[in-house]
Amino acid sequence: MYAAHPSLSLHSLSHTLLLAHSISCSPIPSLASPPPHHTRSLSPPPPHLPSYLPEFRALRKQHDFFTICRNPELACEVSLQPLARFPTLDAIIIFCDILVIPQAMGMEVQMVPGKGPVFPDPIVTPADLDKLVFKPDVEESLGYMFDALNLTRSKIDGRVPLIGFVGAPWTLMAYMIEGQGSKTFSKAKGWLYTYPEASHRLLSAITDLLVEFLIAQHAAGAQLLQVFDSWAGYLAPDTFRTFGLPYISQIATRVKAAIPGVPMTVFAKGAHYALGDLGKTDFDTVSLDWTQDPAEARVAVGNGKTLQGNLDPCALYGTPEMIAEKVRRPFTAGYCIISYTSHCVLAM
Amino acid sequence: MYAAHPSLSLHSLSHTLLLAHSISCSPIPSLASPPPHHTRSLSPPPPHLPSYLPEFRALRKQHDFFTICRNPELACEVSLQPLARFPTLDAIIIFCDILVIPQAMGMEVQMVPGKGPVFPDPIVTPADLDKLVFKPDVEESLGYMFDALNLTRSKIDGRVPLIGFVGAPWTLMAYMIEGQGSKTFSKAKGWLYTYPEASHRLLSAITDLLVEFLIAQHAAGAQLLQVFDSWAGYLAPDTFRTFGLPYISQIATRVKAAIPGVPMTVFAKGAHYALGDLGKTDFDTVSLDWTQDPAEARVAVGNGKTLQGNLDPCALYGTPEMIAEKVRRPFTAGYCIISYTSHCVLAM
Repeated sequence: MYAAHPSLSLHSLSHTLLLAHSISCSPIPSLASPPPHHTRSLSPPPPHLPSYLPEFRALRKQHDFFTICRNPELACEVSLQPLARFPTLDAIIIFCDILVIPQAMGMEVQMVPGKGPVFPDPIVTPADLDKLVFKPDVEESLGYMFDALNLTRSKIDGRVPLIGFVGAPWTLMAYMIEGQGSKTFSKAKGWLYTYPEASHRLLSAITDLLVEFLIAQHAAGAQLLQVFDSWAGYLAPDTFRTFGLPYISQIATRVKAAIPGVPMTVFAKGAHYALGDLGKTDFDTVSLDWTQDPAEARVAVGNGKTLQGNLDPCALYGTPEMIAEKVRRPFTAGYCIISYTSHCVLAM
Repeated sequence: MYAAHPSLSLHSLSHTLLLAHSISCSPIPSLASPPPHHTRSLSPPPPHLPSYLPEFRALRKQHDFFTICRNPELACEVSLQPLARFPTLDAIIIFCDILVIPQAMGMEVQMVPGKGPVFPDPIVTPADLDKLVFKPDVEESLGYMFDALNLTRSKIDGRVPLIGFVGAPWTLMAYMIEGQGSKTFSKAKGWLYTYPEASHRLLSAITDLLVEFLIAQHAAGAQLLQVFDSWAGYLAPDTFRTFGLPYISQIATRVKAAIPGVPMTVFAKGAHYALGDLGKTDFDTVSLDWTQDPAEARVAVGNGKTLQGNLDPCALYGTPEMIAEKVRRPFTAGYCIISYTSHCVLAM
């Protein structure tokens, strides 16, 4: 990206991502601390921004991806890299990966450069579920992330809030069955049609673990919790309502029952058809992808939620003026949204 | 698929795909000939069904993919395979590939088993456009498809209509720049933001060629013409309105100006936001993907078009009863739709 657009410096990128700063929005979930009852407009960095910083790439040459996730000092260092480069950022997301959950359940996951995550031994039939650890000890299997959160929260020293996150049950199940990324997720979707009961069994187990994980992330220092359903758009409305929504929805309900008032965000990428349903969940914020018109989304979601996202990551290939215009547009059109690229920052 | 579901025979699959048979729908575009003024409900086979038939796979072991496309006898044989196996099918789509257009424009395209199409020398910068043949001789560069259509139409001998097709300008541009399939099409989308003028120049040239190609396909025997915008869903509403819709729309207008009354279908996969705009084009039929609720689509598209599609290809992994229920649902809910899987048949 930078090579193709020398005029788009990291600084101007940071500035543009923060245009939302000066516009007051409501409702915005309050962030518990610090600062207490924080209510300013929040434009978190794209979750994967650290992955594209030169300083991260340098570190990545020395360490395996999951080694960084599992080493609290390294994960903290990477999490803070965007803030060091862009001191005006509004928030920091902890460096980790949604696939630590399948790992905690006993599956091997490798991060293959240029290919992404690969499961050498994916789930093939319902009998394979017996190989999984359905109720792992969260502290023992995922404690490294809590240490990373704790250390990062401490080093942020109140400057900005710290965000924790998980992948949604369907998205994790999709990876666990497909064994890697896919253009169709046909094996995983095939499961929903072929083995609906086993699918529910797996999704329930993942959900229970995610609820415990998110509560522990908050206890370790995460002040806002986001659920990424990256592959929701591969589902049809009826399969999402059966296999996606109920689990996402109960995550918000159960986590908020344990931690009243914790702000929570959901991003069901591609699930344009589900905005109305997501508006009825206990999440505070609904994230939009770049195909979802914010004005139409406001009607579908209702007025009870904050909207976030919608900026096409590829818009960052445009000129600074084009980017600024795209970031400003929702505000000039009179509706409130947290400015944020929809998914991740892409390398050109 | 068959291995995983021995109960789902090819016969039951065929039967299920044809449930729409007994329901009369309107408006349905009339098919010119034969039979003249054909007005029955049309449920074409999934375009890529032949690719998953054992008889095709056997042939594919002997011949390269594009060799089959370019050999009228082989292309005709493959096109007729579904009808030989399922004599009750409602229509046949010609065997070819959308990427014959970049080939006609001078680009090399290889079909790599397990990977899909690969362009060894994709377009990188606007200067690369000068390497393209912007106005190729359609008869000389694509005549093999017209011969295949002619031969196939003759061998069908009036039993069912024959469908021709092209890829939409944006989808073809996406491949030409990306050089292969992609989970983000970020290079191609980057072009829209970085080189908007060069993008329009390329899209205009592709559009001119597609119009000529479709008119010639009809002259060679294709009775219905479909435009597949497979990657429309990677665009945002504003980029689709700028770089996708105007070209798709003028294809229908210009082809129909040349061939009054020819039935035309558009499938902009993932462009849920564009249904209202597609309803205002000159296409007769708008194809839906599986994320688009048919009842909501009817409201968005309006009553002037036929709707087609919506069945999730992965639904074919379900039991015959589940599949039948999904195919019947739009009809029992009281709206009219041509039953058709949304995209293609997937191998499990």
